[in-house]
Amino acid sequence: MDIPTFADMLAAHERIGPYIHRTPVLTSSHIDGLAGAELFFKCENLQKAGAFKARGASNAVFGLTDEQAAKGVATHSSGNHGTCLSYAAGRRGIPCTVVMPRTAPQAKKDAVRGYGGRVVECEPSTSSREAVFAEVVAETGAEFVHPYNDPRVIAGQGTCSRELAEQVEALDAVIAPIGGGGMVSGTCLSLSNIAPTVKIYAAEPEQADDAYRSFKAGRIIADDAPTTVADGLKVPLKELTWHFVSSHVTDILTVSEQEIIDAMKLIWKRMKIVMEPSSAVPLAAILRNRELFAGKRVGVIITGGNVDLDKLPWLS
Amino acid sequence: MDIPTFADMLAAHERIGPYIHRTPVLTSSHIDGLAGAELFFKCENLQKAGAFKARGASNAVFGLTDEQAAKGVATHSSGNHGTCLSYAAGRRGIPCTVVMPRTAPQAKKDAVRGYGGRVVECEPSTSSREAVFAEVVAETGAEFVHPYNDPRVIAGQGTCSRELAEQVEALDAVIAPIGGGGMVSGTCLSLSNIAPTVKIYAAEPEQADDAYRSFKAGRIIADDAPTTVADGLKVPLKELTWHFVSSHVTDILTVSEQEIIDAMKLIWKRMKIVMEPSSAVPLAAILRNRELFAGKRVGVIITGGNVDLDKLPWLS
Repeated sequence: MDIPTFADMLAAHERIGPYIHRTPVLTSSHIDGLAGAELFFKCENLQKAGAFKARGASNAVFGLTDEQAAKGVATHSSGNHGTCLSYAAGRRGIPCTVVMPRTAPQAKKDAVRGYGGRVVECEPSTSSREAVFAEVVAETGAEFVHPYNDPRVIAGQGTCSRELAEQVEALDAVIAPIGGGGMVSGTCLSLSNIAPTVKIYAAEPEQADDAYRSFKAGRIIADDAPTTVADGLKVPLKELTWHFVSSHVTDILTVSEQEIIDAMKLIWKRMKIVMEPSSAVPLAAILRNRELFAGKRVGVIITGGNVDLDKLPWLS
Repeated sequence: MDIPTFADMLAAHERIGPYIHRTPVLTSSHIDGLAGAELFFKCENLQKAGAFKARGASNAVFGLTDEQAAKGVATHSSGNHGTCLSYAAGRRGIPCTVVMPRTAPQAKKDAVRGYGGRVVECEPSTSSREAVFAEVVAETGAEFVHPYNDPRVIAGQGTCSRELAEQVEALDAVIAPIGGGGMVSGTCLSLSNIAPTVKIYAAEPEQADDAYRSFKAGRIIADDAPTTVADGLKVPLKELTWHFVSSHVTDILTVSEQEIIDAMKLIWKRMKIVMEPSSAVPLAAILRNRELFAGKRVGVIITGGNVDLDKLPWLS
């Protein structure tokens, strides 16, 4: 297992600087009042391509040798990683192929193509995805960049909480949503070195609580096809992210679907930002566990803003 | 006519500093590509109480003597000015009364009350509003703060473009939506002193084009009950704002309802911010008049973010 180091994270930040935003940290006195805590929202919804995944994808793409890069990159993702890998590949001017289920939303396919990437469709099953992906790699020789179980990606995601620790003094805790665990792992990688007293919490939908159950059991447990409005959080932990989660996370907090939707609408209404359901999971967890965060200074990672504006969850 | 001076604007900025945000300027390379220009969005949707009107209202409230302040402030407004006056009065700890038509949206009434203000309802007619408002003033002795035809308010709004000129170098033009003309007047007041070569454009809905027609005719023309999705822009110019608009504005550009909605959705989608239909009017005007702005560096004022999330205009 090739575990990324703190030096890898620092090198990643240097490498990706020209291709990512140093995103702002926003606050809301109204929401602080509701939470009984001081919350600092790190706005990765304002990141390039609309998600923190531009960090890890850029680190993977710009770390390739020219020879590797010439063959391009490939991944399987129906979410932000595909879009962000296409963004990064576009910035380097190399080919990018994203394998997606044919049932994925048209907007996600358009987003990959909008940055110059190629979409190859598979059937909505793991076996079809693996077979189609193997064909793509055989045909192109492209470098596989996994959405999260990849040391280059985790090192890149770690740059987010490094910035947050520079932007906000004396944090007591940081909380991020957990799906595959890439953002949480990057947060662990950075903060365990920069600010080891900061507690790291992960927040997860009850309906996709595989990380919670893994954390309690002490081993990776994968869900069977979870359904949640926080569609970025359906994927399971893998060995690399499990390494970080099991070593550095203080606790994993779960929330209901309604709590996610309420927190999402609250952020849109009071903070005037567009963000995904997944990004609302940490605030929902804070509001459900007020005693845990009372009086604390808490960094809250808003992971992405790529939402379908025609299908808002409170309007269905 | 008591025309506010540049010194008034500087004094306003000093006075309101503790009560307002220095709002960020955001950019979007995607939208720049569509416009063929470099656009710098000054995000007053992220302002306290969700709108630039917190600036002028704070200047009026915090400029009162203690004796005046004890009697409170009052206004008539069914929009952001009422909310923002309530916000400012709440920060000073003085009473605020807002006269609103009983037909105004519940959310607007709740917003005034949320900051501690009192809502007094009138019938939805000018005569009822004036009669009810006169009663409120007679009963309380409150200081009337007009939404825009007030030198204290215009001086306060001018602090926005002063910040913009500090945040972005070498602007060629600034464009803001125009309703009553408070923001445009403040922009004229500041930029005619700080950066007199910067062209100032106002953008207006075709369906509420009284400022456009006034500008072309050389005198104030008021609309009779205009209807537009940009509901902040229905009010007419008054003598103070006409003074600034007629003296310093380069041109007024009008746009259709569909252009407003399309520009609004484009900003939400690409910039990940929540803003009102009124705030989309300037971008709509830029996209309709590409030749005018081609290759230019243009400041675009996003005036507010208080929108009903249950009634988005592209979902009706």
